[in-house]
Amino acid sequence: MPAYERDGGAIYARSFAIIRAEADLSRFSEDEADVAVRMVHACGLVEAAHFFRFGPGFVAAARAALNAGAPILCDAQMVVHGVTRARLPAGNEVICTLRDPAVPALAEKLGTTRSAAALELWRDRLDGAVVAIGNAPTALFHLLEMLDKGAPKPAAVLGMPVGFVGAAESKDELAQNPRGVPFAIVAGRLGGSAITAAALNALARSGI
Amino acid sequence: MPAYERDGGAIYARSFAIIRAEADLSRFSEDEADVAVRMVHACGLVEAAHFFRFGPGFVAAARAALNAGAPILCDAQMVVHGVTRARLPAGNEVICTLRDPAVPALAEKLGTTRSAAALELWRDRLDGAVVAIGNAPTALFHLLEMLDKGAPKPAAVLGMPVGFVGAAESKDELAQNPRGVPFAIVAGRLGGSAITAAALNALARSGI
Repeated sequence: MPAYERDGGAIYARSFAIIRAEADLSRFSEDEADVAVRMVHACGLVEAAHFFRFGPGFVAAARAALNAGAPILCDAQMVVHGVTRARLPAGNEVICTLRDPAVPALAEKLGTTRSAAALELWRDRLDGAVVAIGNAPTALFHLLEMLDKGAPKPAAVLGMPVGFVGAAESKDELAQNPRGVPFAIVAGRLGGSAITAAALNALARSGI
Repeated sequence: MPAYERDGGAIYARSFAIIRAEADLSRFSEDEADVAVRMVHACGLVEAAHFFRFGPGFVAAARAALNAGAPILCDAQMVVHGVTRARLPAGNEVICTLRDPAVPALAEKLGTTRSAAALELWRDRLDGAVVAIGNAPTALFHLLEMLDKGAPKPAAVLGMPVGFVGAAESKDELAQNPRGVPFAIVAGRLGGSAITAAALNALARSGI
């Protein structure tokens, strides 16, 4: 059995140092780099940083919203459960409506996935919220459709669904036409609930 | 706004077809390849398959245990919340003890992380269980130490923690000396809760 580090703080510190040494963070501002480091940490792949894109003002807008008590609206329970509650600056609510009993019928009626239909239940909370889409491309597409139809604007959107069908396209669409909402994406196929939750944890509080 | 696929079943089917076309699954048996496809799906990276290692009899042992009603013991809530309950063959319990109130003091006493200390609360359920470690290298190291000290043997271990400090080493140790337990690992830094939950979902039931 090899010797190994058992101190949580030391593990974080050494992990973050390795990531800063190996990942190319030169495109990012200092604040963006802090978020990027946690995102790389969550996926174990320094090359993932090549695909991170932060729109203008994203980090400041997301942090201001969180500090003001904005809710975090997530497309998947895994994102919800990756958020470290103790880091949140204002006891912010972390919400996922996917399991709401209204969702299956809504998905049927709208002709889309449950992940997309669940966003319809966000309408009352969307204004000024932090939106975190870490799983379903259809959810990100649906958010953009809601915005095009005049839904209230969130304070910031993390567009980080993962996968092989629609993920790259939905994130491209957000980055090319962000509808006036500060955004961050992971371009291409990469993304997922762990990267998304890590970005939220970085935005919630700086430092380890 | 581009046109996009809104049918969940069609999205899965096309995703899996892309993965089978692009990923090198030639090292795997048919059953292992089914699991590998879902693991790739969860991380959006076909190259991840190079790092998947299935020990002899792993898929059969994990499936038999799940069919017999074995609990799934997870190191992280994100793994728990990535398991699709409807796929489980026997209403299996999915357990994470990380937030048990006894854990912080136990971690202090044992001089290790909470993720590792939480495994001490698994002892009564470990015999014949399916263990899924998708986050913390210290949890996987601690499991191996418990086995070395005579803890009951699980039916199968998914050793898939992610990260830069201890992840590769803990998974190497499991693969090189599995202590008589059928195992699967993601070698190196890659891994994580989504890949681990995807593997569990594949083991729980074959097909989409």
